[in-house]
Amino acid sequence: MTARKGNLMGVREDIKVLDATIRDGGLCNNFQFTDEFVTELYKSNIKSGVDYMEFGYKASKGLFRESDFGKWKFCSEEDLRAIVGDNISDMKIAVMADVGRCDYKSDFLPQNESVIDMVRVACYIHQIPAAIEMIEYLHSLGYETTCNIMAVSQAGSDQVEQALNMLTPSSVDVIYLVDSYGAFYPENASDLAKVYLNAAEKVGKKVGFHAHNNQNLAFANTIETLSYGVSYLDATAQGMGRGAGNCAMELLLGFLKNPRYNLYSLLTFIEKYMLPLKEQGIVWGYDLQYMFTGQLNRHPREAMDFTAAQRSDYCEFYKALLDNF
Amino acid sequence: MTARKGNLMGVREDIKVLDATIRDGGLCNNFQFTDEFVTELYKSNIKSGVDYMEFGYKASKGLFRESDFGKWKFCSEEDLRAIVGDNISDMKIAVMADVGRCDYKSDFLPQNESVIDMVRVACYIHQIPAAIEMIEYLHSLGYETTCNIMAVSQAGSDQVEQALNMLTPSSVDVIYLVDSYGAFYPENASDLAKVYLNAAEKVGKKVGFHAHNNQNLAFANTIETLSYGVSYLDATAQGMGRGAGNCAMELLLGFLKNPRYNLYSLLTFIEKYMLPLKEQGIVWGYDLQYMFTGQLNRHPREAMDFTAAQRSDYCEFYKALLDNF
Repeated sequence: MTARKGNLMGVREDIKVLDATIRDGGLCNNFQFTDEFVTELYKSNIKSGVDYMEFGYKASKGLFRESDFGKWKFCSEEDLRAIVGDNISDMKIAVMADVGRCDYKSDFLPQNESVIDMVRVACYIHQIPAAIEMIEYLHSLGYETTCNIMAVSQAGSDQVEQALNMLTPSSVDVIYLVDSYGAFYPENASDLAKVYLNAAEKVGKKVGFHAHNNQNLAFANTIETLSYGVSYLDATAQGMGRGAGNCAMELLLGFLKNPRYNLYSLLTFIEKYMLPLKEQGIVWGYDLQYMFTGQLNRHPREAMDFTAAQRSDYCEFYKALLDNF
Repeated sequence: MTARKGNLMGVREDIKVLDATIRDGGLCNNFQFTDEFVTELYKSNIKSGVDYMEFGYKASKGLFRESDFGKWKFCSEEDLRAIVGDNISDMKIAVMADVGRCDYKSDFLPQNESVIDMVRVACYIHQIPAAIEMIEYLHSLGYETTCNIMAVSQAGSDQVEQALNMLTPSSVDVIYLVDSYGAFYPENASDLAKVYLNAAEKVGKKVGFHAHNNQNLAFANTIETLSYGVSYLDATAQGMGRGAGNCAMELLLGFLKNPRYNLYSLLTFIEKYMLPLKEQGIVWGYDLQYMFTGQLNRHPREAMDFTAAQRSDYCEFYKALLDNF
């Protein structure tokens, strides 16, 4: 059993905090953030000490109509530069690209011509070969890369082991453990994190964690996995993200002891920009319907429909989920 | 280091679930629950497999004016019987009595004349001698007893050790670890739980855990402490409780694998009785102001004032808290 690394009072210099508000939060509002919102979040993240800010997806314009989404579904170089200029800050810029839903061979510039520092490659476990192909290409362009393997709570441990065996010889920098369905208890999260860490550390790679808050465990799972050595930590302002949302940045920054992180600018951002989003009726966060799908380890789509329909007949919904297991 | 007891798939027969909705939730609405609410919660708890239901406080009518509170601040035998009759169920009835704020020598009948099964004695750590006096008296009347030592996150480890040394020779049945300020991370909670368990188990006593949700960790801390052997678990419907509230019963019942527990009746209760409470404007649950007091390990009173004033200037509030450390 891997021991805990560091303790509750000390600083772990290897920790990197990634703000995924625009990317995962964008799933709540079709990426329709104002430029002011994104600019202020960018400035706030720099002041808060955030290490990476993820601006959205690099999605294929062939597969997704531009008119159906805000610009952060596509993250053009031009749109990024309109916010960050040449990004003369210590914070790095990340985007996500889904295996099979992006045109990575045409849509990425060589890294030295781009403000993007890191590309996060998201895939399901059966797409690892395709993910590796993308990672090698993006690495050859000069980008830092991560591989975010989704929905591993539904994969067998032999599948996970094979996936890690395939990824560890690749050029990927960070392998992410992703709790897509918010199904992990802290013991599950730390057990799997140890498996990822054992594989990754041998070859000098890092491990990240991306939580969902279906069982109100996003923050708990994040600090549990970090205590065993996970070092890339995703969070979003007020936990904004699809369905039950993510680990709240304010909880994470309040927990970390490194003085580089502070809460002040984030709190001001929340007051001025996040509360109005909620008032506009954009909905995310822990609620019973998401708890059910988390407890049952399944995709939150039915819970999202329940939310969209403004239903509150929790018992009927739960019975229907069980009927339809 | 104590090992984990049981695993995520199995049943721990020693677990007892206590519903504290009326008692801790009563702090949100001055115990002004309708009889219908309390009756339906009682029936729902029985159907859900809950082991103990706490109905409120036995507070001194000399110290607290009856007209200022609902009846569950006082829990008279008559009022209890109006709901539960002779309580011909397997679920036991509990009440809480605060050291120094109750008239225990006059207000408790001999247990065989009462529907109350268990008295939970709440105290601060400097009140342990007074708590023990109460416990011995209530034990001599025939009640099961617990000692809920509050605010231990602010006590020194030598104080905690002394308190446990004083309690273990007493007649108390269950010693509760209480995270009054929602200041514990799971590692803190489990470390302290192990200290309580080491002391209690030697003399055949049980350990309980009562969480607060200031850092969205109430459920996480509850299942973390239970994994090391804590067996009395407090929860409330939708986490209703003072300030940030408690561990949500729906999360806990959904986690436990013993088939005696189920969610259905609780979900129906929530739809019919909890949602209307929220619509009436009764407020509880995780929010930034409570996160601050949890992170800073202090009483939530300033956060409760912030909530009551419907403020949302989180940054100013946070700065004022730090000025006033």
